[in-house]
Amino acid sequence: MEKSLGQRFALLTDLYQLTMAACYLDQDMHEEATFSLFIRKYPPHRGYFVAAGLEEALGYLKTLRFTADDLAYLQSTGLFTGKFLDYLRGFRFTGEVHALPEGSIFFKDEPVLEVSAPIIEAQLAETFIINGVSLQTLIASKAARSFYAAQGRPLIDFSLRRDQGTDAGLKAARASYLAGFQGTSNVLAGKIYNLPIFGTMAHSFITSFPQEIEAFRVFARIFPKITTLLIDTYDNIHGARKAVEVAREMAARGERMSYVRLDSGDTAAISREVRKILDDHGLESVKILASGGFDEFKIAQVLAAGGQVDSFAVGTKMGVSADAPYFDCAYKLVKYGGRPVMKLSTGKVTLVDQKQVHRHYDGQGRMLRDTIALRGEAVPQPGPLLQQFMAGGRLTRELPTLKESRDFFHSQFALLPEAYKALEEPPPFPVDLSPGLRDLQARVEREIHHRELGES
Amino acid sequence: MEKSLGQRFALLTDLYQLTMAACYLDQDMHEEATFSLFIRKYPPHRGYFVAAGLEEALGYLKTLRFTADDLAYLQSTGLFTGKFLDYLRGFRFTGEVHALPEGSIFFKDEPVLEVSAPIIEAQLAETFIINGVSLQTLIASKAARSFYAAQGRPLIDFSLRRDQGTDAGLKAARASYLAGFQGTSNVLAGKIYNLPIFGTMAHSFITSFPQEIEAFRVFARIFPKITTLLIDTYDNIHGARKAVEVAREMAARGERMSYVRLDSGDTAAISREVRKILDDHGLESVKILASGGFDEFKIAQVLAAGGQVDSFAVGTKMGVSADAPYFDCAYKLVKYGGRPVMKLSTGKVTLVDQKQVHRHYDGQGRMLRDTIALRGEAVPQPGPLLQQFMAGGRLTRELPTLKESRDFFHSQFALLPEAYKALEEPPPFPVDLSPGLRDLQARVEREIHHRELGES
Repeated sequence: MEKSLGQRFALLTDLYQLTMAACYLDQDMHEEATFSLFIRKYPPHRGYFVAAGLEEALGYLKTLRFTADDLAYLQSTGLFTGKFLDYLRGFRFTGEVHALPEGSIFFKDEPVLEVSAPIIEAQLAETFIINGVSLQTLIASKAARSFYAAQGRPLIDFSLRRDQGTDAGLKAARASYLAGFQGTSNVLAGKIYNLPIFGTMAHSFITSFPQEIEAFRVFARIFPKITTLLIDTYDNIHGARKAVEVAREMAARGERMSYVRLDSGDTAAISREVRKILDDHGLESVKILASGGFDEFKIAQVLAAGGQVDSFAVGTKMGVSADAPYFDCAYKLVKYGGRPVMKLSTGKVTLVDQKQVHRHYDGQGRMLRDTIALRGEAVPQPGPLLQQFMAGGRLTRELPTLKESRDFFHSQFALLPEAYKALEEPPPFPVDLSPGLRDLQARVEREIHHRELGES
Repeated sequence: MEKSLGQRFALLTDLYQLTMAACYLDQDMHEEATFSLFIRKYPPHRGYFVAAGLEEALGYLKTLRFTADDLAYLQSTGLFTGKFLDYLRGFRFTGEVHALPEGSIFFKDEPVLEVSAPIIEAQLAETFIINGVSLQTLIASKAARSFYAAQGRPLIDFSLRRDQGTDAGLKAARASYLAGFQGTSNVLAGKIYNLPIFGTMAHSFITSFPQEIEAFRVFARIFPKITTLLIDTYDNIHGARKAVEVAREMAARGERMSYVRLDSGDTAAISREVRKILDDHGLESVKILASGGFDEFKIAQVLAAGGQVDSFAVGTKMGVSADAPYFDCAYKLVKYGGRPVMKLSTGKVTLVDQKQVHRHYDGQGRMLRDTIALRGEAVPQPGPLLQQFMAGGRLTRELPTLKESRDFFHSQFALLPEAYKALEEPPPFPVDLSPGLRDLQARVEREIHHRELGES
C-alpha cells in the first residue's frame, strides 16, 4: 500500500523540531500553541500574493505518523530517549487550522494559515508546511502575473524540465493552473490533479528525420487533432512555408492544424511574418503558440510590440519564480498557553496572537483595504477571510476541488483594482491593524523589554 | 512494496515525449539516438559547474516502467493507440550512458551526460533527467561557492523550509554535502543519504518559555552533547550573557556548550562582541554559529569585516540558488542512426555527435584547459573525463558512495586555480574544440543549410 503524505514526510523536517519536541515532552509542556504563517515582505515588483498549497498541508496534518523505520533511524542517532520515541510512535495531529482558501488574494503580514495545537504537534509541522505552502503560493503568485499580462490568451505550463525537482514540477503545474493557466505539459500532474495536458514536438523530433517536412507530415497524420508544429529548428520562415504545405494536406483530408510554434528569435517580428504567411494561404484558423523564455515581462513586451501570438507556453521563469525564487515567509509562535508571544530580533517583529483578516470593498465591489485584527475582535464592517478547515485533527469542511479554487481565484482577481496588478512597481495595497491588535502588540512588546532586557 | 523511482516517475514527463514516441513507433524508427546534456552558458558570476545527480538518473533509467495505472490514464486521454500502449507496457531502457562522475568540475558546452539508446527510450527520459541532474548540479555549483568563501569553516544546510518542494529539499541536502558541506538540518535527507544531521533551536522555543534563560537551561540539560543556544530572540548581547550563565552551569556538571547561534543583525560586529563576552568568562571553547540569509557573498563579507564566526548555517539562498535559480541547460539530439544532427535556431547551436572531454594540467598539476572532442577521436595528451556507467540498460561499474563523490569533489576543486573560483566575474576557463569536432560541426551545418534552407 502507498504510504500517506504524512507517513512519507514525517522526517522531512529540521532536526531542531525533534529536539525541541523532546524538551517540551520532558517539561510536560502540552498547552495549546498557535503558529501563524505569513510573508514578511514583497519581492521586487510584487504587490499581492495568491494563496496556494492548503490542501496538501491539511492532507499532511491529517496523516502525519512516524513509521517504525523512522523511529529506528531516530534511535540510531543516539539523541533521543525511549520515552520520546514512544511518544512519537503514538503521535497524531489533534489541532485546528484556520486558513485562507486556495486562490485567495492576500498581502504581506497577513496570516495565510494559523495552526493551533499542543505545542509539540504545531511545532513539528512547521518545516513541511512552510516548504509546501510557500512554494505553491510563490508559483501561483508568479503565474497570476503571466495570466494578467496575457490578457485572456491561454497559457500552458512548460516548466517541468527546469523546475527544482520532481515535487516542484508537480506543484508548478497545479499552482499555475490555480492561477489561471489552461493546463500543463506535465503528464503526471495531469494524472494526479486532473489537469488538461498539452504538447507539441521537440527539435530532436525534427532533426531525427532526414527532412523537416517529413517530421511535420508524420506528426500531422498520427495526431491530427492536436497538431502543433515547431517551425524554428532550421529557420522560422522556411519552417512556416513547410507548415503551410502540411496544413493544406491536412485540409484536403478534412483535418485542421491547431498551431505552429515559435521557440526562438524576435517573437513579435517573426509572429507577424508567420501570421502573414498563414493568412496568405487561407490558413487564418491556424494559430500561433510562442515559447522560449516567457514570463509576464516578455509576454507584455511581445504583445506591446504587436506580436501576433494566440497562446503562450510559459516555462522556467514561472516554474522557479526566477526573479523571486523564494519568499521571506515565516511560521511564528504567536500564542502559547493563553499568553501572546513575539520575538524582537532586529527587523523581524511578529504580530501576536490568533488573528483574522477583514477585507473592505468600494462601491463598485472592488478591494479597497484590509484590516488585520485579533481573531475574536469585533471590528466595524467585518469581512473575514480566514476560514476554519480543521479541528481535532479532522477536516471541518469539504475542500473545494482544484477547479473550484481556480474559479475562486478568477472571481477574486477580478476584484483587485488594476493599479495593484501592475507588473512593475505596483503601489502597496493598504493593510492596517485593528485597535485591539495594535494595543496588544504594544503591551506585549513593553512586557518583553521589561522582562528580558531589564528595561522599565 | 514501495514503487521504484522509474515506476513512480514514468509519467513525470512532457506530453510531447509520448506523442513523439508514438510517431517513432508508427514509423518503425528504432535506430540508436544519442542525446547530450550540457549547460549553454554561465549565470552571472559563475565560472564552473559541479556535476551532481547522476546516481538518481541511472536509478531512474534502470527502473523505468509504465504501471497499469499509468497506462489506464494514458488510454483515458484518447490520444494513443492500443499498439503504442502495448509498447509502453513492455518498455525497458536498454541503452548506454556516458557521464562525468558526480563531484566533477566542468564548464559550459561540455557534456555532463550522454544517453545512447533506441530513439524512443532516449527521448522519453529527457524531462526527468534534465529536471534531476540540472537541479543537483545547480545546487552543488552554488554550494561549492559557499564552501570556497568559508575558507575551511564547517557549513550546514539549513535550507529545507524554503527549498522549492520536498524533492528539492532532499536534493539540496545531498548536493550541498557533495560540494563540501558538513551536513544538513534535514532529518529525512540524513536518513536517506546517510548524512550527518545538525540542529539548534527556534525562536518559538525561546518564546514558549516564560523566560529565555529557562529555555536555555532545559535544552542544555536534555541535549548537553549538542547544545547550541539561539541568542538573538530578544537581544544578542543579553542573550549572550544568559548563555554564559548556562555554559558555566554546564561546565560545573562537566559538560561543554558547543555553540551559540546568531541569526540577525550585523553578524560581523555582534560576533566580535559575543566572542569577547564568551572569552571574558573563560568560554573560549564555545563556538559561534551564524545563520540568517547567508550565501557565499554574505559569508565573504562577514569574514572580510572581521566576523568571529566558526561555522555558518547556509539556507534559502543556497537551497534555491537564489541569484541563478536555473541553468540554461539542454538535452539535445546529436546523432541519430549514425547521422550527426543539430538544430540551427537562433543563438542555440548544439555540438554534434558523441563526445568526450579531455582535461589538460599545468606543471603543478592544476587544471589548464579542456578540449571537447569526438568520443572516438585520437587527441594529443588525452585526459578523458566522461566514463561509461551503463550499457544494455545495466550499470557497467559500481557507483561511488556519496562520501566518495564528496572526496572526489574535494580533490578536483583543489586542482581548479584560484582565479576561476572568484565569487565575482571569474575569467572564463579555456575550453576548445578538437579538430575532428570542428570539422564535423562545419560539415553538418553546411549540409543543413543546403538541405533545409535551399542554400548552396
